[in-house]
Amino acid sequence: MALEIERKFLVVGTPWESLPQGALMRQGYLLASPDKVVRVRIEGDSAMLTIKGKAVGLVRGEWEYAIPFTDAAELLALCEQPLIEKYRYRIAFDNMLWEVDVFIGDNAGLVVAEIELDSESQPFTKPEWVGKEVTHDVRYLNSNLLSHPFVRW
Amino acid sequence: MALEIERKFLVVGTPWESLPQGALMRQGYLLASPDKVVRVRIEGDSAMLTIKGKAVGLVRGEWEYAIPFTDAAELLALCEQPLIEKYRYRIAFDNMLWEVDVFIGDNAGLVVAEIELDSESQPFTKPEWVGKEVTHDVRYLNSNLLSHPFVRW
Repeated sequence: MALEIERKFLVVGTPWESLPQGALMRQGYLLASPDKVVRVRIEGDSAMLTIKGKAVGLVRGEWEYAIPFTDAAELLALCEQPLIEKYRYRIAFDNMLWEVDVFIGDNAGLVVAEIELDSESQPFTKPEWVGKEVTHDVRYLNSNLLSHPFVRW
Repeated sequence: MALEIERKFLVVGTPWESLPQGALMRQGYLLASPDKVVRVRIEGDSAMLTIKGKAVGLVRGEWEYAIPFTDAAELLALCEQPLIEKYRYRIAFDNMLWEVDVFIGDNAGLVVAEIELDSESQPFTKPEWVGKEVTHDVRYLNSNLLSHPFVRW
């Protein structure tokens, strides 16, 4: 088990526009409950099966396995539709890696930036394009964007 | 994806008693719905994560991944309790492999024999200790034995 410690923010402006096109991620959920998630994700030609436990504060247990792309394509068909689709950009700033997700489809218009930390109290510097923190707003969980997509907020 | 084509029978007598102790299987379900199952299983020191789709007749899609034993032990703790526990015996008969599951815990007293086929119409010979077919009786699905264990039938 890895521990996922993540903070999530809204994005101000369009810091990704000067970058090469981000990787298209397509992901679905075999299970999306508040205390347990089973996610299938395709990014480019690679695919992952990920299980997440219940979050305690910022910390969440995560078990992740690379799986064959063709398996993932089949498993995505088992998931609740539509899938979550987004372009992911990775932007380095002050020795930290920010992941900027630009959603499309039913979540078009939503852009969030995430940073993975080694501990809940780890300090970091925010780039100027990082806005309001939404870590604890469950609407922004990808697993909740399925049932409550951004276009309907 | 593999296709799982399986028939399940009750067992008459105790054909496993003359065999060496079977492997202890401990399994739990991250998800156990009629059309989708995510199962974690430990057998000896090996562990599998298995996803099964909806059964159509005898046929069910199955995606199976070996995972580290320590991951499986952690994931079993995420599953609904108690776990399903059983001893599995593998008995060859007429060039086919029968799996005989002798349940313990809340399902003690239940013994079933399963055979995996290459097609729904594949003929096979039943050993004399193979009794009534229960393939289509959903009470015998391991994923249902959780909520309705054999001791309460």
